[in-house]
Amino acid sequence: MDEIELIKLLTRDLPGNDRVVVAAGDDCAALKGETSEELLLFKTDAIVEGIHFTAETPPEKIGRKALARCLSDIAAMAGSPTAALVTLALRADFDPARVESIYLGLNKLAREFNVAIVGGETTTNPGGILISISLLGRVESSKITLRSTAKLGDAIFVTGELGGSIDGKHLDFEPRLTQARWLADRFPLNSMIDLSDGLATDLKHVLDASKVGADLLSSAIPISRAARDVKARSANGKTPLSAALSDGEDFELLFTIPSKHAVPLNDTWKKQFPDLKLSCIGKTTETLGLRIRDRNSIHPMAIDGYVHFKKP
Amino acid sequence: MDEIELIKLLTRDLPGNDRVVVAAGDDCAALKGETSEELLLFKTDAIVEGIHFTAETPPEKIGRKALARCLSDIAAMAGSPTAALVTLALRADFDPARVESIYLGLNKLAREFNVAIVGGETTTNPGGILISISLLGRVESSKITLRSTAKLGDAIFVTGELGGSIDGKHLDFEPRLTQARWLADRFPLNSMIDLSDGLATDLKHVLDASKVGADLLSSAIPISRAARDVKARSANGKTPLSAALSDGEDFELLFTIPSKHAVPLNDTWKKQFPDLKLSCIGKTTETLGLRIRDRNSIHPMAIDGYVHFKKP
Repeated sequence: MDEIELIKLLTRDLPGNDRVVVAAGDDCAALKGETSEELLLFKTDAIVEGIHFTAETPPEKIGRKALARCLSDIAAMAGSPTAALVTLALRADFDPARVESIYLGLNKLAREFNVAIVGGETTTNPGGILISISLLGRVESSKITLRSTAKLGDAIFVTGELGGSIDGKHLDFEPRLTQARWLADRFPLNSMIDLSDGLATDLKHVLDASKVGADLLSSAIPISRAARDVKARSANGKTPLSAALSDGEDFELLFTIPSKHAVPLNDTWKKQFPDLKLSCIGKTTETLGLRIRDRNSIHPMAIDGYVHFKKP
Repeated sequence: MDEIELIKLLTRDLPGNDRVVVAAGDDCAALKGETSEELLLFKTDAIVEGIHFTAETPPEKIGRKALARCLSDIAAMAGSPTAALVTLALRADFDPARVESIYLGLNKLAREFNVAIVGGETTTNPGGILISISLLGRVESSKITLRSTAKLGDAIFVTGELGGSIDGKHLDFEPRLTQARWLADRFPLNSMIDLSDGLATDLKHVLDASKVGADLLSSAIPISRAARDVKARSANGKTPLSAALSDGEDFELLFTIPSKHAVPLNDTWKKQFPDLKLSCIGKTTETLGLRIRDRNSIHPMAIDGYVHFKKP
């Protein structure tokens, strides 16, 4: 049983109550606050030694990554983070200096985005370091961006350049909180998600939840320098394009917007964020499924993102 | 370095912001909501195979315990739980039926207390099962009960009977949410904590945070049947009283209240909760430290609760 089957099994019949606005299945859960104007965002994410980082990863970067992943999910809902709890599971013979450095990296990023660290827990874990972050945020009810609300005829955009994150970006990426807030304040976004499992997989999440399909233009996919690196590619057998489509941990934003806003968005974005690429990579379609178009043809796209517990 | 030293190291300089009302160090963090009337409670807690449960523990009880521990912390702040996220770290070769049963136990308890399960995460953990719960709750600003606000001359109360939880109660305990709300609605509680590390250790947390001492009356300590069990006691060498004072995972409430309310409280409690013992076990004192009085003498009490990472 892989992760997707397991999650399907476990989320069949989850308890709810009248506070829930967005339940399991989006980047964050959303709950009613005291008034109807603001929603609470609630997210948890864990990173594990041997999967998301190694014994050689600089500890500051481990702590930074643990929090940055959750911040990226708050960004995907167009929210602002407020406070986090940190659960740290350690071997009994942990190195206090390494643990302190993990915290230094985490706290530095927290200060950058005005996130309070309000507690957490330490416990023993025979298998190695596991860091789980719980993050609270907030968003105006009118501005929250979901996976399930893409519309037919939307233009599909991604920020940044994709693929090859494993070469370093997965430890250094900037959660796109500022960009997400800027977008939600100025443009009628129909849907948004952050790219954690790979463009094709994450876009598929949006399409499935929104009951639309999509055509992508292969020449429009922004391919990172790392994904173009010939040596890295020969190691895993992916072309630069397939790396950009399927590599995980890009932590860029993917969003859809009525196509008439595409040109004005592109123009104002360039002035606001001159150093961060924004690409219109395709459009939503009535025909379900995901297709990619190149000079000569259009063909269905294989989905191959990262899946936990996958049998080899 | 043990858990207490580690936490001291890690919490020296945590980032804060203007939303924080109660930071790290109490049962839950508390954050400002949109209005000044209600506070958000925020808590995380993890249980780990081999420490909090074993490979033989019935899986429903594992899931139940994971959530119940967090609910007990919300109770300690006199709050009501609203929504939880579940992080499940599993070996790659996990048993789906066992994992589903863990969820069944957890969901059942969630429904009992109207807690929505709004998502979470599954990830691989080479060392075995680790379940981390993040829980949100709320409490009126005027009713929140802290560890740090016990006053001189308070009567000290505990609910239930203490010690020997390892014989079964640690898997079946009832989080004292109803009792905590009832108390906070009717009596001017000065402080409250839930008993997770053992009466002596947890009371010490209250005393240290509140800068008072306490005298306990040994004959007033409510000793559970499990703590009186001769066979169990001969195994770990504790007397029934020392088991009641030092065994962890009782998950009862310990609270302090101006002593003039002690008698009315006892009377109304008996009518409201005839099946749950309430004991006045002592009083706070100006002299710092914790002392226990028996028929013949009063002497300082050794603190010996459960500490993670403790060197043998």
